[in-house]
Amino acid sequence: MGNSFGQLFQVTTFGESHGAAVGVVVDGCPPRVRVSLEDIQRDLDRRRPGQSSLTSPRAETDTCQILSGLYDGQTLGTPIALLVPNEDARSKDYSEMERTYRPSHADYTYDAKYGIRDHRGGGRTSARETVGRVAAGAIARQLLCQRAGIEVVTYVVRVKDIEASIDSDRVTSAQVEATPTRCPDPQAAERISRLILEAKEKGDSVGGVVECVARNVPVGLGEPVFDRLEADLAKAVISLPASKGFEIGSGFAGTRLYGSEHNDEFYIDETGRVRTRTNNSGGVQGGISNGENIVLRVGFKPTATILREQKTVDKLGQHTTLTARGRHDPCVLPRAVPMVESMVLLVLADHWLRQQAIAGKQADAESFARP
Amino acid sequence: MGNSFGQLFQVTTFGESHGAAVGVVVDGCPPRVRVSLEDIQRDLDRRRPGQSSLTSPRAETDTCQILSGLYDGQTLGTPIALLVPNEDARSKDYSEMERTYRPSHADYTYDAKYGIRDHRGGGRTSARETVGRVAAGAIARQLLCQRAGIEVVTYVVRVKDIEASIDSDRVTSAQVEATPTRCPDPQAAERISRLILEAKEKGDSVGGVVECVARNVPVGLGEPVFDRLEADLAKAVISLPASKGFEIGSGFAGTRLYGSEHNDEFYIDETGRVRTRTNNSGGVQGGISNGENIVLRVGFKPTATILREQKTVDKLGQHTTLTARGRHDPCVLPRAVPMVESMVLLVLADHWLRQQAIAGKQADAESFARP
Amino acid sequence: MGNSFGQLFQVTTFGESHGAAVGVVVDGCPPRVRVSLEDIQRDLDRRRPGQSSLTSPRAETDTCQILSGLYDGQTLGTPIALLVPNEDARSKDYSEMERTYRPSHADYTYDAKYGIRDHRGGGRTSARETVGRVAAGAIARQLLCQRAGIEVVTYVVRVKDIEASIDSDRVTSAQVEATPTRCPDPQAAERISRLILEAKEKGDSVGGVVECVARNVPVGLGEPVFDRLEADLAKAVISLPASKGFEIGSGFAGTRLYGSEHNDEFYIDETGRVRTRTNNSGGVQGGISNGENIVLRVGFKPTATILREQKTVDKLGQHTTLTARGRHDPCVLPRAVPMVESMVLLVLADHWLRQQAIAGKQADAESFARP
Amino acid sequence: MGNSFGQLFQVTTFGESHGAAVGVVVDGCPPRVRVSLEDIQRDLDRRRPGQSSLTSPRAETDTCQILSGLYDGQTLGTPIALLVPNEDARSKDYSEMERTYRPSHADYTYDAKYGIRDHRGGGRTSARETVGRVAAGAIARQLLCQRAGIEVVTYVVRVKDIEASIDSDRVTSAQVEATPTRCPDPQAAERISRLILEAKEKGDSVGGVVECVARNVPVGLGEPVFDRLEADLAKAVISLPASKGFEIGSGFAGTRLYGSEHNDEFYIDETGRVRTRTNNSGGVQGGISNGENIVLRVGFKPTATILREQKTVDKLGQHTTLTARGRHDPCVLPRAVPMVESMVLLVLADHWLRQQAIAGKQADAESFARP
Repeated sequence: MGNSFGQLFQVTTFGESHGAAVGVVVDGCPPRVRVSLEDIQRDLDRRRPGQSSLTSPRAETDTCQILSGLYDGQTLGTPIALLVPNEDARSKDYSEMERTYRPSHADYTYDAKYGIRDHRGGGRTSARETVGRVAAGAIARQLLCQRAGIEVVTYVVRVKDIEASIDSDRVTSAQVEATPTRCPDPQAAERISRLILEAKEKGDSVGGVVECVARNVPVGLGEPVFDRLEADLAKAVISLPASKGFEIGSGFAGTRLYGSEHNDEFYIDETGRVRTRTNNSGGVQGGISNGENIVLRVGFKPTATILREQKTVDKLGQHTTLTARGRHDPCVLPRAVPMVESMVLLVLADHWLRQQAIAGKQADAESFARP
Repeated sequence: MGNSFGQLFQVTTFGESHGAAVGVVVDGCPPRVRVSLEDIQRDLDRRRPGQSSLTSPRAETDTCQILSGLYDGQTLGTPIALLVPNEDARSKDYSEMERTYRPSHADYTYDAKYGIRDHRGGGRTSARETVGRVAAGAIARQLLCQRAGIEVVTYVVRVKDIEASIDSDRVTSAQVEATPTRCPDPQAAERISRLILEAKEKGDSVGGVVECVARNVPVGLGEPVFDRLEADLAKAVISLPASKGFEIGSGFAGTRLYGSEHNDEFYIDETGRVRTRTNNSGGVQGGISNGENIVLRVGFKPTATILREQKTVDKLGQHTTLTARGRHDPCVLPRAVPMVESMVLLVLADHWLRQQAIAGKQADAESFARP
Repeated sequence: MGNSFGQLFQVTTFGESHGAAVGVVVDGCPPRVRVSLEDIQRDLDRRRPGQSSLTSPRAETDTCQILSGLYDGQTLGTPIALLVPNEDARSKDYSEMERTYRPSHADYTYDAKYGIRDHRGGGRTSARETVGRVAAGAIARQLLCQRAGIEVVTYVVRVKDIEASIDSDRVTSAQVEATPTRCPDPQAAERISRLILEAKEKGDSVGGVVECVARNVPVGLGEPVFDRLEADLAKAVISLPASKGFEIGSGFAGTRLYGSEHNDEFYIDETGRVRTRTNNSGGVQGGISNGENIVLRVGFKPTATILREQKTVDKLGQHTTLTARGRHDPCVLPRAVPMVESMVLLVLADHWLRQQAIAGKQADAESFARP
Repeated sequence: MGNSFGQLFQVTTFGESHGAAVGVVVDGCPPRVRVSLEDIQRDLDRRRPGQSSLTSPRAETDTCQILSGLYDGQTLGTPIALLVPNEDARSKDYSEMERTYRPSHADYTYDAKYGIRDHRGGGRTSARETVGRVAAGAIARQLLCQRAGIEVVTYVVRVKDIEASIDSDRVTSAQVEATPTRCPDPQAAERISRLILEAKEKGDSVGGVVECVARNVPVGLGEPVFDRLEADLAKAVISLPASKGFEIGSGFAGTRLYGSEHNDEFYIDETGRVRTRTNNSGGVQGGISNGENIVLRVGFKPTATILREQKTVDKLGQHTTLTARGRHDPCVLPRAVPMVESMVLLVLADHWLRQQAIAGKQADAESFARP
């Protein structure tokens, strides 16, 4: 249970880290969205390990196979199944994990919940599980872009104590991809890169904050009461491995202001649209998008796997120590960027369809069948 | 859409602020849980307006009626419908809201989404909607307490810049209820109380942070991948009006640590249980409860309604100004405490049932039918 | 669990037969559908007991209260809560049912499943539970009629061995309502009426078949694979009390034909539409509506409550006998007509919205907010 | 949408007939159920084409690959992904189908709904889609057998007008598999075999009825109101291609009886269990299993594909004729048997888990983690 996400744009992921494959089934994508293998592979390449010295050296090409749902470069309206075989699975690196619980990992809780666990590479708890999310997000991106003109950009805004300065209204994906840090502030990127490499050398790890902006979102997405847009966004990103916190708009900093400072004044812009002068709301009011940019931040803890001896316990209830081997990231932030982006895309695709259901004007279905 | 929550412990709320009533249907509560009207009313009384000088003076008694699902003081296993009639609805206070959009409220987005809106008292966007959540939470509390011994305590830890010092392992509900602030640190409570009254006098408002701790949660609750326990908790609390941020365990502060500082060392305690020496994980690892206390925090913005003239626009696309009348809270935090607590209870009840489904040992159903 | 129905047009019913009230919450109805209390009451009046000598004499007016979701005669897009208080509940008639299991009723299975039961009037197992379904169906009818021009007519086609002859393409609701039997074939209606009264006199009961036709359904409703339109229709009507069978189109009779006899030949009609010359498919092909009339039939068993002594067992595991008192219908068919109709309306409303989600052309949401 | 089934035992199928593969993801199967590849392949072999002269000669071995969710011969509690590559896809046989609509097939409705269609082999409308259902059903079977001792047997009871005589209380799977007809009445099987071959020779097709019995089902499965056990069973089997009708227990025949003839008298058997002397209820009362055998029947129309010239229309709105080529079954009944059985297994697995959730006694989760 719990491996599906979305009400209308439904995503189901599967796969253990060192099993045969990881993948995803996307059900509910409307027909006739143009999607190419390249569209999917591009995002998978941003997520895959081994892409730079800042990330895990696991040598996965993460080559995507399309099993169903696409025909002639377009979605059919049927389930889209995507598969990425596991290649460079060095399971013996993980033999110790069969009986010893890694601190701040999920080995113990999986054993406790299920009474069985595929310990190889972390099994289902591995960040490798996010392959399916990212592949699905690539499809959501095409839907949102082609049907609604929505654009989502995501980037690193802080690693440990190094803060970047980024204009969420203007930052581009090209700027994000310019360095392996995925921090589009070049000075901060330089310092972050050094910090991560230093942590790596010490066998330690660091965390930080990812920011995501969705631009050109139509007014009206989000379903009060429980499925507020920001609530579904919060769930989406907090379901990512290693995430510890979520903020929208002014976030926790906003809780330190007076209402008179915090409120977003409405005005009519030159095109006649209702706008707000500030965006403390983060693009969402009462759970519904208001047409301003949606801006959210996600905090990620320092990677739990560190190459130092740590005290822990084993399956038999004995105290022991563990020194991680295996390949891992000294900082998840650069690879967390496409993960956060995918989850935001999935939420927006779902809510865009939900709003279509109540506000769309039904096309004459029969007309499809004739020229 | 979006007015239901939970997979197995399913809650559906309804009702506009100035309509006939607000209420909730709870479907999926197991049979034979003892629930009294007093259990429900006690939590509603903590939520209702007019309970102190710190909250809105709207004079609602919020008297709960049980329509179905309870018989002889016990749940039947059938839907439990609970109703709270609206009494003190001064709709004329809100006539201006019919055409003028209050800044940082949902008037505009509701109009844009639905093309129609019950403007009286904010309609469905009013915090009055949370009556149903709190009533449902009271039932979840009985289930969790009677079947699993789980206890949830919630309190204010910060208002604006005033931080309280609270031991989440030991704080009690009685301490929380000792002052109208619901901050169980007496010195901070005193300062918070003054701050709120000052803001009220100035016609302004303040925000802050609520913390919630769930104790005695069994190991194994939470469903990877998307329905991680912390992901469902995040969605639950971010679906509350005025919430802007969510953290679990070390939260955003934890993102500033090294992995070697942040990891929670495992040990075996004197009773033979697997425990962690620190709780940066916040009681959840890999999306599954690990038996430590679950600790989360929710940031609430300063109340959007302030008694000062603000610039805004109206339905006709004209610039205008608005000076709120109506009754409101200068700070939502004291009343947000039972709301957050209810949402956490609903998530735990749902996941406790979900874990029963896979790990429970089915009782001999027939045995119920005979003495 | 199991008290909700529908993916986008979501209905949740509640209420025991002799509790405070029965009712329903409808979540997901689009905004700005015109719905009056009369629209709802009209269908409830067709369902209520005491409407003729053919039905149970329980004297319920079934007066509907609207608690939320409607404003100024239109839906708000928020949950619509409808309530019908229970009035004529003679609970003492049912005291024997507390310990004795009525044959072919749900007393035993409820006791076995839940270990507790509100025995008064059958509690949740009573057909009184369908009040909520019928009230919700009345709202679905307005949506389907106003937005899509869909029309649904339902009627009795057989009681015991008396078969009626009815043209499903042309039969009207007025013809159905012309007699208390709800069989629009006057000769058959006369015979059915006599048969039911004879059964009633003998303290016995009879069953039969209800047919439902949906006309002007757009091509394209229904979601392969599991949510085929006919599959959701089957679930909908088989969830009604006392139903034992479902057929679509040619149904079981069609299984006796050769393929060459059964296939529906396509042709282009004078308006250029794709049509079929026969309708063995019943308006659905591959799970998707094809624009022909949707025609389905539901079999209802003879009412389980009969006024004769029957052998049975009690809660203590003792053999005993039972002679029903209480008020009941000697034949459920006349009152089953609005129940079946409601369930079909709910399915069509849900699938119409689902099709909107993928095929609708999103209206410019902002335009709602300005004149 | 609509490619998932089940609330707790969730199944999602994917794949077009002539795409890369068909398959399924099963999410929600409890951990530590023993499942082998052979268990799955056995059921797939009963479903696959080319198994006898009575079925389509398409030469698919339907070899199943396990991608995830199983480790060391046991379920992990994580999603189980199963894949069957398509091998013998002769797409050119179907080129005519790109523009011509086969009568009583879904070509037209798919085109109308989606505006795009993979016409090769029927794409997603092909019965090949049921591969995923049958593979998932094989897992459900192991769960139900190992945890609850439930046994499901399915067989052909009628083809066209040839009725078999079968004792649902005693019939075995071995008897069913004894002939290619899957009719366990040898005399009827002989006549059915001849009838199918005659129809095949004439290029025609026949339909009939499949019966399914579930034995040793515990009392208490099924969720009133909408998710009655029989309602979910009806949806499950009516979602199969070519199905036209559903009956439970006495079915349509029962609607011709008096209540005094139809009611199932309760008694206490020698072991002290509550039983019924007859089983007109079909093992379900008030939507909940009563411990008697669950008996249901499904009607299947004659195969729509016939090797005769038929009048029809094409995509351009022109009248035309079509003479099917391609490989197909002159009678779906023998292969429908494992399909119906799988759907019944899926429903029972889902409801067994749902009942666990409310009636199970939670095992001490921690105990799993230690010896």
